[in-house]
Amino acid sequence: VSKKISRAALPANVEIVCVGSELLETNVNTHERYIGGRLRDSGLRLSRGTTVPDDESALRGVVREALGRCDALILCGGLGPTFDDVTREAVAAALGRKLVYKPALFSVIKRKLARHRMAIPERNKRQALVIEGARPLANGVGSAPGQVLTLARRGRTPQTIALLPGPFAELSPMFEERLLPALKKTYARGTHVRTEVFRLQGMAESVADEKLAGLTRAPRPGVSYTILAGSGQVDFHVAVVASSAKAAAAELARARAAVMRAVGSHVFGTGAASLESSLGAALTARGWTLAVAESCTGGGIGERLTSVAGSSRYFLGGVIAYANDVKTKLCGVSPATLASAGAVSAECARELAEGVRRATGATLGLAVTGIAGPGGGTAAKPVGLVYLGLAGPGAGEHEERELRLGTGRASIRQRAAAAALGLVLRRARPRA
Amino acid sequence: VSKKISRAALPANVEIVCVGSELLETNVNTHERYIGGRLRDSGLRLSRGTTVPDDESALRGVVREALGRCDALILCGGLGPTFDDVTREAVAAALGRKLVYKPALFSVIKRKLARHRMAIPERNKRQALVIEGARPLANGVGSAPGQVLTLARRGRTPQTIALLPGPFAELSPMFEERLLPALKKTYARGTHVRTEVFRLQGMAESVADEKLAGLTRAPRPGVSYTILAGSGQVDFHVAVVASSAKAAAAELARARAAVMRAVGSHVFGTGAASLESSLGAALTARGWTLAVAESCTGGGIGERLTSVAGSSRYFLGGVIAYANDVKTKLCGVSPATLASAGAVSAECARELAEGVRRATGATLGLAVTGIAGPGGGTAAKPVGLVYLGLAGPGAGEHEERELRLGTGRASIRQRAAAAALGLVLRRARPRA
Repeated sequence: VSKKISRAALPANVEIVCVGSELLETNVNTHERYIGGRLRDSGLRLSRGTTVPDDESALRGVVREALGRCDALILCGGLGPTFDDVTREAVAAALGRKLVYKPALFSVIKRKLARHRMAIPERNKRQALVIEGARPLANGVGSAPGQVLTLARRGRTPQTIALLPGPFAELSPMFEERLLPALKKTYARGTHVRTEVFRLQGMAESVADEKLAGLTRAPRPGVSYTILAGSGQVDFHVAVVASSAKAAAAELARARAAVMRAVGSHVFGTGAASLESSLGAALTARGWTLAVAESCTGGGIGERLTSVAGSSRYFLGGVIAYANDVKTKLCGVSPATLASAGAVSAECARELAEGVRRATGATLGLAVTGIAGPGGGTAAKPVGLVYLGLAGPGAGEHEERELRLGTGRASIRQRAAAAALGLVLRRARPRA
Repeated sequence: VSKKISRAALPANVEIVCVGSELLETNVNTHERYIGGRLRDSGLRLSRGTTVPDDESALRGVVREALGRCDALILCGGLGPTFDDVTREAVAAALGRKLVYKPALFSVIKRKLARHRMAIPERNKRQALVIEGARPLANGVGSAPGQVLTLARRGRTPQTIALLPGPFAELSPMFEERLLPALKKTYARGTHVRTEVFRLQGMAESVADEKLAGLTRAPRPGVSYTILAGSGQVDFHVAVVASSAKAAAAELARARAAVMRAVGSHVFGTGAASLESSLGAALTARGWTLAVAESCTGGGIGERLTSVAGSSRYFLGGVIAYANDVKTKLCGVSPATLASAGAVSAECARELAEGVRRATGATLGLAVTGIAGPGGGTAAKPVGLVYLGLAGPGAGEHEERELRLGTGRASIRQRAAAAALGLVLRRARPRA
C-alpha cells in the first residue's frame, strides 16, 4: 500500500527504457523504482518508464519518441554478446550514427573473461562496439561496458543518452559512480536535496496518516511526503528540495522535529535501519542476549535476526516450537497449560518465553504463538489471534501481548514477527 | 538471472500502462510481469509496458500513442477517489469522449463502504464516472469499478481499452475473470496454448542450460523456452502455441518427455510446486515427520516449511542452534566435536541432525551449519562453506553433505536452505 501525499515540482525530465522480453513475462522490473528513487533524491525526476522486448525495431521507435520529450534518456539492458542484445544497434540507428569497433575495449573484455577462465567467443566483439561520439563506461563487475553520449541543444542544456547493462550488480555502480554525478551536474546544479525515511512499528498506516496530517495536508514549499506500509511496518519518506544546502538542511530538520512530535514514540529508526538491525544495536548497547521460541512464525523471527551480519554477538538461537510436544520437551511448557488454556494463549506464550530463556541462558526470551490459518480458527480463537511473550531481563520479569492480525497466512506471520521484534526493541531501548 | 532462449511468433499486440508516481520512486511494478505472463499463456503478447506518474496530460499523451500501435490497451491504477487519480479523465480525453455519472454504480460503492463502516466522502462519486460507451467491471474487493471499451476498426478486429484498479488484489480477479477471457475470444480465437514450468533443485543453471540445449538450440515450431534461476532453484518454462488443442497437448507431452530425459532426476515438481510443498507431500505420503536444527540459516528452513498451510502434519519444529552453547544444550552436540572438528563440520552437522531427531522424536532430523559471512571465514573454512546433515529414518541412518556456496550472506543462506530441503526431498521421494 502506498500513497503519494504531495509532490514538489522538480525540474529536469529523465526517462528510462528497460530492454528485455523477460521483463514482460517472467521477471519483475526493479530498475524503475531504484533509478527513480535515486533521481528524486538528487533533485531530478523520472517522468516515464518504458519496458520493451528484445526487438530492435520496436526499441528504435521508443528511443526516437523519448528523445523528443526528455532531457536525459537511460537505457537498461540489451548490452550482452548474444543475438537478442540489440540496444547498441537500436540507439545508433535512432540517432543515425555508426557503431565503431574499439579494439582496446575488446582487450579489456578478453582479459576479464580470461580471468574467469572462460572461452572468449567471437560474438563478444559486439560488446566493444561504441556509438559514434559516445564515451564508454567501464564495467567493474561483468563484461558489458556502458556508454554515454551528450547531444548539444541550441539554447538549452545538452541532452544525455546513457546505455547501462541490465544486471543490477553491474548497472548500480555504473549509475551511482558515473551517470548520476554527471546528471546532477548538468540538470540539477544549484538544487539541493535532502531526504529522510522514518521507520515506524506498532502503528497502523491509517493512524500514522492521521497523526501526520498536520505536515502532509498543507506541505511547505519544496517538501514532499510519501507513506508506505507493509509487513507490520510503516515508512514515512520526506524529501526536501531547496536552493541552498543550508536551506535544505533547515527544512529537513523542521520536518524531522514535526515527525518526531507526531509519531516519535513509534519511530524505531531512520534511513537504512531495519527492525532487526535496530534491535541488534539496542541489545549490543545493553550487553543483552536474546533467544526465541517460535510457533506460528516457524523460524521467521530467527531468520530475520540472523540476516544481520554479526548477530551472533546478541542472538543465541532458540526453539521452533511448532508441535505441542516440542513446546513441552524443549521449552518446558506444562501439559496442564496446553490442556487448559491451549497453545494459543497468553499463558503458553509466557511459559515458552521463560522456557527458552532458561534453556539457552539468554538475557531475554521471546515467544510467539498464534493461529496463522487458513484453518484452525474458532469463534473464541479466530485466525489472526497471536500472543507474544517476553521473559527477562530480570528473574521473573515477563510481559505478554495479545494481537489480532486479520487474515492471510503470510501477512499474519510477517506482522507477528514485526510486532515481536518491536516488543523486544521497546524493552531494550526504553524511550526517554 | 533469466535467459530467453527462443520465442514463437505470437499474434495480437497488447500494451499495458501502469499509472502511479510511486511506481517511479518507491514501489516495484509487478503488474507487467504478471499480466505479460498470463497473456503469453493465452496466446497473446505484451509488446510494451509504460509507467507514468499521476499526471493527466502525460497519461493522455501515452494513451493516444499506444492506441496508434496496439490491438488492446490495459491501464492499471489511477481509479481511486482522490485528486491524483486521473485515469478515467485522461482516457476519456484521449478518445474525445465524455464521462457519464452512473448513480447505480455509486449505490454499489456506497453499500460497500457502509459495510466497512466507513464514511462516504463526496469525492467517491468520481468512481461512478464511466467513459461514454464503456461497460463497468464490478470490483469484488475494493471500491473502484473497472471499465472496458471496444472500438470498431474497419476490416480488423476491434480495439479494446480496459481500465483496471491498481491494487493487485483488486486487479487480479477482474483481469482473470472478465478481461482475459474477452481478450482470448477476440484476439486468440483458434490459438491453443499449453504451458508448463519444470522446477529443478540441485543443478546449476549453466549445467541445466547445457543439458537442455538439445531442445532449446533448435526449438520446434510454436515452442518457446525460458530458463530462470534464483535462490538455489532453476525453473524451466515451456510454452506451446498450436492451431488445435490436440496438437498443443501432443507438443507439450513431447517437450515434457525430452525435459525429463535431460534433467528429470533434478525435477522436484511442476506448475505451482515449491520445494517446501513438494517435500510436504512426500513426507505426508510416507507418514514421516521432520525436525530441523539450523545454525547459519537461523530459522529460514523452518520458516519455509511452515509457510505451507497444514505443515503441522509433518513438521514438528526444532532448534535454532546459532550459538555453540545452544548446539550443545538443546541438540546434544558434544563439546569435544566442537573443539576438534569445529561447529562448521560434517561431524557437527551429523550430531545436530541426530540430536534434534532425538530431542523431538521426529522420523528425520535435518541440520545445517555453515559460514554465511561476510566475516568468520578462514583459508581452510571459507565463507560459503556449508554442511548438511540428515538423520533417520532408521536408527543410526545418517548422511552428510559439504557445499561451497560462493559469497553473499543472503544468497548463501537461501541456497543452503534450498539444498537442505532438496536433500530431504530426495530421501523421502526416491526416484524410480
